[in-house]
Amino acid sequence: MTLEEQVLDRIKPSPEEKEKLQEVASQLLSNVSTAAKHLGLENVTPKLVGSAARNTWISGTHDLDIFISFPESTTREELECKGLLIARELAKDGKNVEERYAEHPYLNMNYRGFDVDLVPCFAVDSASRIKSAVDRTPFHNEFIKIRIPGLEDDVLVMKQFMKGTGTYGSELRTQGFSGYLTELLIIHYGSFRNTIRNACNWKPGLIIDMLEHGTVKHKDPLVVIDPTDPKRNVAAALSLNQFAQFIEACRLYTEEPSEDFFFPKEKTPMKENEIIDMMRSRGSSFLAIVFKAPDLVDDILYPQLHKMEHSVRVLLEEYDFQVLNSAYWTKEEAIILLELVSSELPNVKKHRGPPVWVSEHAQGFKEKYLDSDELFSLYIENGFYVADIRRKFSTAKHLFTEKMRACSLGKHLGEAVTEGFTILEGNEITKIKEADFRKFLRKWEQKK
Amino acid sequence: MTLEEQVLDRIKPSPEEKEKLQEVASQLLSNVSTAAKHLGLENVTPKLVGSAARNTWISGTHDLDIFISFPESTTREELECKGLLIARELAKDGKNVEERYAEHPYLNMNYRGFDVDLVPCFAVDSASRIKSAVDRTPFHNEFIKIRIPGLEDDVLVMKQFMKGTGTYGSELRTQGFSGYLTELLIIHYGSFRNTIRNACNWKPGLIIDMLEHGTVKHKDPLVVIDPTDPKRNVAAALSLNQFAQFIEACRLYTEEPSEDFFFPKEKTPMKENEIIDMMRSRGSSFLAIVFKAPDLVDDILYPQLHKMEHSVRVLLEEYDFQVLNSAYWTKEEAIILLELVSSELPNVKKHRGPPVWVSEHAQGFKEKYLDSDELFSLYIENGFYVADIRRKFSTAKHLFTEKMRACSLGKHLGEAVTEGFTILEGNEITKIKEADFRKFLRKWEQKK
Repeated sequence: MTLEEQVLDRIKPSPEEKEKLQEVASQLLSNVSTAAKHLGLENVTPKLVGSAARNTWISGTHDLDIFISFPESTTREELECKGLLIARELAKDGKNVEERYAEHPYLNMNYRGFDVDLVPCFAVDSASRIKSAVDRTPFHNEFIKIRIPGLEDDVLVMKQFMKGTGTYGSELRTQGFSGYLTELLIIHYGSFRNTIRNACNWKPGLIIDMLEHGTVKHKDPLVVIDPTDPKRNVAAALSLNQFAQFIEACRLYTEEPSEDFFFPKEKTPMKENEIIDMMRSRGSSFLAIVFKAPDLVDDILYPQLHKMEHSVRVLLEEYDFQVLNSAYWTKEEAIILLELVSSELPNVKKHRGPPVWVSEHAQGFKEKYLDSDELFSLYIENGFYVADIRRKFSTAKHLFTEKMRACSLGKHLGEAVTEGFTILEGNEITKIKEADFRKFLRKWEQKK
Repeated sequence: MTLEEQVLDRIKPSPEEKEKLQEVASQLLSNVSTAAKHLGLENVTPKLVGSAARNTWISGTHDLDIFISFPESTTREELECKGLLIARELAKDGKNVEERYAEHPYLNMNYRGFDVDLVPCFAVDSASRIKSAVDRTPFHNEFIKIRIPGLEDDVLVMKQFMKGTGTYGSELRTQGFSGYLTELLIIHYGSFRNTIRNACNWKPGLIIDMLEHGTVKHKDPLVVIDPTDPKRNVAAALSLNQFAQFIEACRLYTEEPSEDFFFPKEKTPMKENEIIDMMRSRGSSFLAIVFKAPDLVDDILYPQLHKMEHSVRVLLEEYDFQVLNSAYWTKEEAIILLELVSSELPNVKKHRGPPVWVSEHAQGFKEKYLDSDELFSLYIENGFYVADIRRKFSTAKHLFTEKMRACSLGKHLGEAVTEGFTILEGNEITKIKEADFRKFLRKWEQKK
């Protein structure tokens, strides 16, 4: 049995599991029809979409996406109102029912152990005429359903490979490959192995246009033109770094295939002494900005954490602190972790002024500093005035305390930070006991 | 009495002092003639040149430049041989006689309390036909002697102003204004005050061409075309920094004239606790490289110290140490003093590799580091491989110990450093007790 067959063995749903899913899906579809009829809605069609509809779901994932399709002539208000009415009718048998919002509202619930989305949409003629982003999904569904038979196992193995290497998922937290993108790649390259082989040589700017109908230039690292919409890049959410990570994973897998790519060993949390040893050995300065994570969905929270990490780096560099590495982590708390060359700088800072012979500027420069308490010394160097002045913030901690709130943060994180934050420095970071955070720290000691 | 008159009062030779100088000069000139006659040399003419000949010498400076002029037809060998014969004849009455070398040999001696140079030269028709650099001097002498009468006092005051502000002297140690250049400036601007007033607005690239006969483009900050040689810039030795220092001194003097510009208060040596306080207050890292100064004339020693200071800065920056300020000092010992942001860096150093998609380079980069003990971690950042590796030198002291000898140093300093050097760090610098070094340190605390 090949490695890929072994992997498949662990992730392919059993006939019983498939049957169960089919049965639940059928019941939901029929319930939608019934509810529509009760409400006197004639032209409403329920559709099962997503991996469940395409036999490309991994054993154990119990997601059902039921689209409730209204005629194109329906107004948006009507769609939202009546779509939710139908959904709420079904929800009577569900648990943990939640109204959620994408472009328009939909219902999420747990139904007989399945995670079910009930999504109202417009039945448009072609994907280029969609009225809402979700309207595209049924077209994807049709395109894949026709072409995927015989390739389902390759999709499953590829999805598991991406999950194991951290590149699966197009949400903003991951910025990796979506299920639909994975399916298109398998259809395009014909198999898991051939996709891996080709990806080893991918370069940014690669365009895969299966129907040769693309009409728009995209600047993303990978461009996969949507077969159902010539203007759209299916890989738009893939970040340059995840693109690179995937290439690297494909190369390493080609050199030395192993089950670890699909099922990586769970990291163990770093122990206190391991953290201390790691920091001492690197000799750099570690700082953690810790605050209460606001209660937000990942797609809002993660971009804001990303932005905050960036803003904090910009702030540090503006005040001469050199950043080596940074990352963020969140659970109940959010933490921006920073590794600096040094969290302390000398009091003195060199400030170059105008050349001596530009007398208008010279006067202003000298007047600014000569009477200032902040001046160590003023002299001429290579024809320029130079003032050695007192640095405003000689520790990163002091800088954060004074300037963090003035940082460009996302709305919600800005509020969270205003409510309060803690700076942990060096060994104080071991005060954070969260096992998951301690696992996250492993990336600082990993020798690949 | 104006300030400048008061200064003049202190520096202008008395009639008795002048008379004494005239008398000694006359005797030397006559001795040269006598000696030449004894040797059967007919066409040899002695000449008094320099400030003594032009009445532009400051009281207390007892320098006499006697040029022994040979006909143009004389060969260089003859000039050197016979010139020195005459000089040696005079030297019988002198003390501390020393043969020195410029383009050709000359004699220096102490004679009746005067520092006398006896310099053989060729009597050429015009300064553009000189056979040796010293042949130019008699032409300078003629040019100034005709034009300086009535301006001698202004020259004296200007020379003292330049001495007091550290800009007088065209030797390589100072890189300032020569006596001849000072005289030309006074002739050009007409007075001390007018020179000061004009210099406040000098800009690099200024050309003063009194006879409007300049033929060559010069790149020096100040260009004063030699009235006796259209190709030559009299101010070629003036550095950009001394040019700027002089402008600044003229401006400050204009704003608030004071005797301090001419006779600055002697600095006092910094006390041990003052040095320690100064370093603590600045919060930066001080290092001194100390070694035995080789026995060299200033014009060879100072350029090599300058070069060494530069090389050491380049070495530090190559290894990521940030230099704030540096300077050198020398007496029996030579010292390169360095002020760094920090003399310690973390063990870890970030090394950016090729982008992941350039697979040829990727392989080489990874192979280089993956099996190395120097690797902390290897990862992908923004699509590039990055290796966090162990820094070779995490202290400046270690770097110097290992790499100083490989530094590009001048010949003599290279030898001196190879024989041994000491690194003093932080408070250890107070081990240097030399009063003059302790004065030199004042520039780090001076608030102008």
